[in-house]
Amino acid sequence: MKHVTFSGRLVMVGCGSIGQGVLPLILRHIDLAPSRITIVNSDDRGRAVAEAMGVAYRVSPLTRENFREVLAPLLGAGDFLLNLSVDVSSVALIGFCREVGALYLDTCVEPWAGGYTDPSLSASQRSNYGLRESALALADQPGAPTALITHGANPGLVSHFVKQALLNLAADTGLAVSVPTTRAEWGALAQRLSVKVIHIAERDTQLANIPKQRDEFVNTWSVDGFVGEGCQPAELGWGTHETVWPADARRHEFGSGAAIYLERPGASTRVRTWTPLEGPFHGFLITHNESISIADYYTVKEHGTVAYRPTVHYAYHPADDAVLSIHELAGKNWEMQSRTRLMMSEIVSGMDELGVLLMGHERGAYWYGSRLTIEEARVLAPHNNATSLQVTAAVLAGVIWAMENPARGIIEPDGIDHERILEITGPYLGEVVGVYSDWTPLQDRGRLFPEPVNASEPWLFGNFRVT
Amino acid sequence: MKHVTFSGRLVMVGCGSIGQGVLPLILRHIDLAPSRITIVNSDDRGRAVAEAMGVAYRVSPLTRENFREVLAPLLGAGDFLLNLSVDVSSVALIGFCREVGALYLDTCVEPWAGGYTDPSLSASQRSNYGLRESALALADQPGAPTALITHGANPGLVSHFVKQALLNLAADTGLAVSVPTTRAEWGALAQRLSVKVIHIAERDTQLANIPKQRDEFVNTWSVDGFVGEGCQPAELGWGTHETVWPADARRHEFGSGAAIYLERPGASTRVRTWTPLEGPFHGFLITHNESISIADYYTVKEHGTVAYRPTVHYAYHPADDAVLSIHELAGKNWEMQSRTRLMMSEIVSGMDELGVLLMGHERGAYWYGSRLTIEEARVLAPHNNATSLQVTAAVLAGVIWAMENPARGIIEPDGIDHERILEITGPYLGEVVGVYSDWTPLQDRGRLFPEPVNASEPWLFGNFRVT
Repeated sequence: MKHVTFSGRLVMVGCGSIGQGVLPLILRHIDLAPSRITIVNSDDRGRAVAEAMGVAYRVSPLTRENFREVLAPLLGAGDFLLNLSVDVSSVALIGFCREVGALYLDTCVEPWAGGYTDPSLSASQRSNYGLRESALALADQPGAPTALITHGANPGLVSHFVKQALLNLAADTGLAVSVPTTRAEWGALAQRLSVKVIHIAERDTQLANIPKQRDEFVNTWSVDGFVGEGCQPAELGWGTHETVWPADARRHEFGSGAAIYLERPGASTRVRTWTPLEGPFHGFLITHNESISIADYYTVKEHGTVAYRPTVHYAYHPADDAVLSIHELAGKNWEMQSRTRLMMSEIVSGMDELGVLLMGHERGAYWYGSRLTIEEARVLAPHNNATSLQVTAAVLAGVIWAMENPARGIIEPDGIDHERILEITGPYLGEVVGVYSDWTPLQDRGRLFPEPVNASEPWLFGNFRVT
Repeated sequence: MKHVTFSGRLVMVGCGSIGQGVLPLILRHIDLAPSRITIVNSDDRGRAVAEAMGVAYRVSPLTRENFREVLAPLLGAGDFLLNLSVDVSSVALIGFCREVGALYLDTCVEPWAGGYTDPSLSASQRSNYGLRESALALADQPGAPTALITHGANPGLVSHFVKQALLNLAADTGLAVSVPTTRAEWGALAQRLSVKVIHIAERDTQLANIPKQRDEFVNTWSVDGFVGEGCQPAELGWGTHETVWPADARRHEFGSGAAIYLERPGASTRVRTWTPLEGPFHGFLITHNESISIADYYTVKEHGTVAYRPTVHYAYHPADDAVLSIHELAGKNWEMQSRTRLMMSEIVSGMDELGVLLMGHERGAYWYGSRLTIEEARVLAPHNNATSLQVTAAVLAGVIWAMENPARGIIEPDGIDHERILEITGPYLGEVVGVYSDWTPLQDRGRLFPEPVNASEPWLFGNFRVT
């Protein structure tokens, strides 16, 4: 079914796993002729898929120097720039779209090439916090063309899961509330429910029948994307219930103050977390925009000081082959493997169990999210695995929302209509469930060895962290 | 070729991967009729292999209560007890062998079932240091029947690699030495060469065409054995060049004092190390008897105080599927997976690169060891993979040495003739090589984030450790 009719042109920058996977969804759900779509990519990887659908494909790597020249003929007022690339600055493209009057969506705030691992930049400058602030700095023109940033699965979809989870939690604890309509109301609801910690808790169990080789990075989605964010500092929204400052934690000297970072890569930072099907496991605290945006969105200020904020971060167990790839990468001091492989047709089983885990409230822990198997994903859409389909469905929904709401300026997932997004993504997410648990990070601790836990407050960050 | 004729009976306790793999080697290299061998095991796993070779097989799990009754009819003066089991106390069997006049060999000092993870024991009591002291306490009868303890690949073979590596290093640095014949002379040689650190540096690259499943522990050798030692405290011989005491380190209150332990499982303790084919990588500091025995053996005392000792520990990268299994096990707070799988016929490629890495001397780092591929292993012996053959060849050599030297009492690998062992094992070790390197644990550190390294002394334990 078509959700919306779009009369402009659509330019897609980048055509890796997400670009290839979202293209059939766009053509299925948006009334837009393939001939009005142009793909601009840095290599030929997506050409066969695009051309088979009648979409123009050109290879033209975008740089600081050439991006205006390449994009100017392709984009004008009422057109759409869908940025699914790596190594192309989101802020530069957003600025360009505003100048020409085009709509915009991306799945993260990306710097130009090398920006994530440039040793001449400080960790704070390389952080998602810094990148987010650089994008939000453009949010000063009400009524400007909509630029929906960071709207993939996570960041993106999970912000809508948080809202739905809060509403479910309110209902299940007998709190009579109407659906909040403002940021202040959402913050008040989270505060009233005493949600102390939110993990984006993800367990990807997809397995391939080709073992990972030495000197190879294997992942179920963009290897470049994952290595880039994995080498950024670990970042987390820092909640008001936290009383112990981590020794390697740093505050930023600018911006919202909602998040902190650790002076180490997220790919070497493990945390305890929980999902309904996996149970307890160790995930990686990879930096993500939602860790900052959710913490910021739900911050409640009273008389100018912060009265409430949840701790928010990612706790990611990627596919097993990616866990091995990270282990190898760390062993080489973050010197990238020479070969990469995106797991797709070789996947033989598994699912992506992706949701939000709200903790510290009256009911303990509550996970709300999507369980999508590889088998379901293959039935639902071509050119996707379970991981990519959770992203591409959310990209699709974000594009539709932006087309339906074309003059909202720069905006994050937390600020938009979660019901509309969940309505569009629903058919592509497999089983969407909410599950309560009595799990805490103190469970089964200290059995064989003394562990420095703080038993008086289970939900402190130090209790989650694996040291 | 037959290395030795043995006129006694041989009882093998346990028949897992090592038992099944060593049996054809024993029959090939020891003049001993299969009818004189009896296998006593806790289950049926090795029955088919044993009976196909004409060896008697009985299922009779040994316990504190029944072991004398089971073994008494099978063992007398001049017989041999080869202990390749788990969950059977080495000290109990050694004591029994001494009483009846039988020879003995094992591949580790094993406690009775549950001894590695008994929460009622202190970490010091559960350590290999403690187990080793309990075995050495029996070493008070000169001329007692030989009981060669801890003689597999490691512990075992690697002690002989250390001696050969020291001799090679002496030759390559122009030090004219004759082969030492006493412990004091070996210690003096290591001291003179300024060997500060010895890693048992192992990278197992064997891969299978069956992916590890959730809730499954997969390994290239005994899963029970690996989980047992992986949950023991991390232990290391503590060298005289170490100036920084690790915050989680503890000394034992008894025994030689050669080693310390960390208050955490070895399976959660990573260290930087290096092998010639892998280059730098992260290995696990799993406790092993050789970490203690080598440090002890090469300790030089002057006027009653320790003047020299190297730091010695294991730095183990098991097969990738075992790395994943450890990651899963840690995520479940060391609650064992419900399924296990020993990788054998499903291995499609890879090798075990197992050696000793001597560091801090004039030439920097020197690795000496075995590179054995799965393809070579399969040609060399049935019922083996690359990992097991390095063990079984060493077990074979130890058994032969004990038969040739039947009245040496309790003895460790460091105390026996390394040339004889390397002569017997040589044909089964693939390529045996020594390689120099300028690698140090400071290489490529601190590029993206500040790291608390001690640049003035590269070879401090704190520089190796991954935190």
